[in-house]
Amino acid sequence: MHEIAIESQVLSDNALAAHHNREHFREHGVYVLNLMSGPGAGKTTLLERTIQSLRPRYRLAVIEGDVQGRTDADRIGRLGVEVRQINTGHACHLDARLVHRELDSLRLSDLDVLLIENVGNLVCPAEFDLGEHDKAMILSVTEGHDKPEKYPVMFHVARALVISKIDLLPYVDFDMERAKKQARALNLDLEIFPLSAKTGDGMDAFISWLESRITRVKGA
Amino acid sequence: MHEIAIESQVLSDNALAAHHNREHFREHGVYVLNLMSGPGAGKTTLLERTIQSLRPRYRLAVIEGDVQGRTDADRIGRLGVEVRQINTGHACHLDARLVHRELDSLRLSDLDVLLIENVGNLVCPAEFDLGEHDKAMILSVTEGHDKPEKYPVMFHVARALVISKIDLLPYVDFDMERAKKQARALNLDLEIFPLSAKTGDGMDAFISWLESRITRVKGA
Repeated sequence: MHEIAIESQVLSDNALAAHHNREHFREHGVYVLNLMSGPGAGKTTLLERTIQSLRPRYRLAVIEGDVQGRTDADRIGRLGVEVRQINTGHACHLDARLVHRELDSLRLSDLDVLLIENVGNLVCPAEFDLGEHDKAMILSVTEGHDKPEKYPVMFHVARALVISKIDLLPYVDFDMERAKKQARALNLDLEIFPLSAKTGDGMDAFISWLESRITRVKGA
Repeated sequence: MHEIAIESQVLSDNALAAHHNREHFREHGVYVLNLMSGPGAGKTTLLERTIQSLRPRYRLAVIEGDVQGRTDADRIGRLGVEVRQINTGHACHLDARLVHRELDSLRLSDLDVLLIENVGNLVCPAEFDLGEHDKAMILSVTEGHDKPEKYPVMFHVARALVISKIDLLPYVDFDMERAKKQARALNLDLEIFPLSAKTGDGMDAFISWLESRITRVKGA
């Protein structure tokens, strides 16, 4: 008890809340992915494709983080999965407490996978652990290959990098090898998935990776 | 430039300093390990063994973090590698700024590997990114198998877990499978190395893993 008391005093509020979330996820065997990107990189479209691929085999729910509005939640809701909208108001990122408030109503015992779409922002969400198993980030080829240099923390904390909108590669000046190399320099374990959620090209590799992660949680 | 200015305002001071350190390490191709544990788990003994194993092939230096004193630095210095002692005074952990101050005098261009021994503490160091490539933590079998439950953040952020002092397993009540299972529940990618730095049993696997990580950095 003494050691736990010390930890409560010292850990940041968010780290403690993230730990509580993680306990809930572990108790119910729910795999949780925190999906992050700048605005317009294609998080919601990737989510739609991902839900369609996983839904035949897993019980899914989604948390949508936005500063305001519920456009994305409505899109995802049309796929027939449980969705919770979190509006952060002034905050540019989700935090573990905001996520925790939604967990009761989501009935974790009825879920296999929880997908969290963070606020569109390449900076702040990187520093807030939500209790997820993996952080995935999306960089679209239209944003440019220089982003690892500009947003190093996000590339450092992500477990997977989706390089999205590769159907637009012929029309933009995006150096795939340079982007990959610089991202890996920030993160030795980064898994990189170039794909187009629009055409479906490359989706299989990303879904296979997700399934391997889900299996690791369910099998643990 | 605009985006970088925003990031400077928003990221925590430590995240920014860690990023600067990471840039230095990347520029010079230096692999950096942040070694953490509670007091007396055997960090310095593991470091000594590790240095002996790696020194024939790599140019090494060590940063020793302690609240006060330089006992560990003196031990490591006797092995003939460069050592810098950081005394944190009132702080219970190293931070990225403290590490940054030592980098100039360490001449990174002459190094392959920098090993950082953090302050003996299973709580606070977990939340401070130093710019390292990997965090490794040590849990000794004499501390007990319940530590993943008590120190979840440390187990969550570590890339490798060394379970040390396995030569004492016959004399203590330590459930190895339970410790592994609970640690993996907090961290899907955790590499676990049961070993005795005293007898050398299990050291090979840990050293092989370190070499694979060094190779990834040097080959990037």
